[in-house]
Amino acid sequence: MSKTILVALGGNAIKQADDKGTAAEQFANVYKTSRELVKLIKAGYKLVITHGNGPQVGNLLIQQEEGKKMVPDMPLDVVGAMTQGQLGYMFEQALGNLLRAENISTPVAALVNQVLVSADDPGFKDPTKPVGPFFTEDEAKAMAAEKPNWVIKEVKPKEVAKRFRRVVASPAPIDNSEIEVIRRMIDAGIIVVASGGGGVPVIHGKDGLEGTAAVIDKDLAGAKLAELINADVFLILTDVDHAKLNYRKPDETDVKQVSLSQMKALAARGDFLKGSMGPKVNACMKFVENGGARAIITSLDHAYEAISEGFGTQIVKD
Amino acid sequence: MSKTILVALGGNAIKQADDKGTAAEQFANVYKTSRELVKLIKAGYKLVITHGNGPQVGNLLIQQEEGKKMVPDMPLDVVGAMTQGQLGYMFEQALGNLLRAENISTPVAALVNQVLVSADDPGFKDPTKPVGPFFTEDEAKAMAAEKPNWVIKEVKPKEVAKRFRRVVASPAPIDNSEIEVIRRMIDAGIIVVASGGGGVPVIHGKDGLEGTAAVIDKDLAGAKLAELINADVFLILTDVDHAKLNYRKPDETDVKQVSLSQMKALAARGDFLKGSMGPKVNACMKFVENGGARAIITSLDHAYEAISEGFGTQIVKD
Repeated sequence: MSKTILVALGGNAIKQADDKGTAAEQFANVYKTSRELVKLIKAGYKLVITHGNGPQVGNLLIQQEEGKKMVPDMPLDVVGAMTQGQLGYMFEQALGNLLRAENISTPVAALVNQVLVSADDPGFKDPTKPVGPFFTEDEAKAMAAEKPNWVIKEVKPKEVAKRFRRVVASPAPIDNSEIEVIRRMIDAGIIVVASGGGGVPVIHGKDGLEGTAAVIDKDLAGAKLAELINADVFLILTDVDHAKLNYRKPDETDVKQVSLSQMKALAARGDFLKGSMGPKVNACMKFVENGGARAIITSLDHAYEAISEGFGTQIVKD
Repeated sequence: MSKTILVALGGNAIKQADDKGTAAEQFANVYKTSRELVKLIKAGYKLVITHGNGPQVGNLLIQQEEGKKMVPDMPLDVVGAMTQGQLGYMFEQALGNLLRAENISTPVAALVNQVLVSADDPGFKDPTKPVGPFFTEDEAKAMAAEKPNWVIKEVKPKEVAKRFRRVVASPAPIDNSEIEVIRRMIDAGIIVVASGGGGVPVIHGKDGLEGTAAVIDKDLAGAKLAELINADVFLILTDVDHAKLNYRKPDETDVKQVSLSQMKALAARGDFLKGSMGPKVNACMKFVENGGARAIITSLDHAYEAISEGFGTQIVKD
């Protein structure tokens, strides 16, 4: 039986820091990323791929706002689904082309994917995740009147005119709504792109699932999906080759192979930055805590070495 | 063996004529449509569902244009993929909820889907399909300078200021790039939403598949997909219960069950309007010509009667 790897791609897999965000740039990055993934596929691993969507959802929200005098703006759940179409298309095309060029017949499929969160998640009471355009104080007041269900907060210092922004919850993923589909697709030998952008967040409403204004952490959604498909490895690919202790200090040290309880102790030191390495470490620990054998954090270009040679930060069961 | 039906949903399945195009309206329509589809699923049919995306792609193109001072606008292929995410999400949620409410465990999955066209398709030489916002003459000149690969044509009379619009090819679909995935998903008992908006149009380029600026007729793409999956029935659901002879004349007559050669003779009379019933009839004839047993055109609310009682315009092999 070949092993299954849930690959969670960081923002740099699709957008480099100095990119403008054009489609050509995104395609070039997705090709570069896909070349690394091909190495894993050639080595016989089954892949399920997930990815972020921060810059893409941000741009679409700005476009929704700019165009709203002419056409209705779509809510955040629908915009999230749009980015799954956008990025799923890029991965289907790039990874599919690279595999065909290598005469590998494994098909690639991007799935539109809902991820369940709890309506009672504490995140909904105090939303903190900023999304979409920045507003001046006047614009923020107008937006608050126009969108009574929005929470708008001051996110930049007083000196900045456009310092207000919508904030939404970042609830914990509790299930993947298309899990049965994903399992059947994996069994059918398909490389699946799923849970893009952390998944379209849905709650249990009166008619069943319904979309909600939230952004699910993509690494946590990836860890949940890895758990639900019983992945052998949960592999987070980012822009650094290891999680670091004493980050950016003279005695900076790579975290290499550690057990879950060792990693918990290291995480408690606070070296892994909130909003950066912290959520990745948390997601890895969640996966191993919930029964996963191995979670890895490394850079995109070390993906193959991480799987074949134990490179990178590797968290294993106690 | 249960029969497979390729259901091609017309524009009214997602947007009513007097809708503004809000997400709430779209969800309400998708629920209404899905209720009809549930009847077919309950009767034991396997469904593959395709849908149009005209109003959605139009709105996104307007938003791309309005927002382009702030963020890069995405090309037509990427925007098409976005609408597959948007509408795929709505169908996954609505149809999924309705099935769960009936205790039917068949899972629903929306797939991001590329459809192959030929770079030599005559449509690319003389594009005729208008897309996106309308421009004044000055705006059209500025757009032509900004987008040298665009073809912009005068599509309204001289008296109308905003009378210019981008036109793109509407090439014939020659293959479905995710066909292997779709076949495996059907075999795995999944209800698949695919080829949305006619599919994201791709051509064979230097690196393999690449997106192209085009809009594939969704009924033709549906007929091609129906052929490729060996669907037992190709069912086009629209806003009228039959194709009509002498349309809107005193002697208007419903076309009921006809053979392919009979339908060809009727189509030659010119009663089926170009851009309306004509393409639907053409797509049905293509499916039967290419070996399909039965193609049907009827209204959404007669879907079940069409399958169970032979209602609607039914085209069968000679």
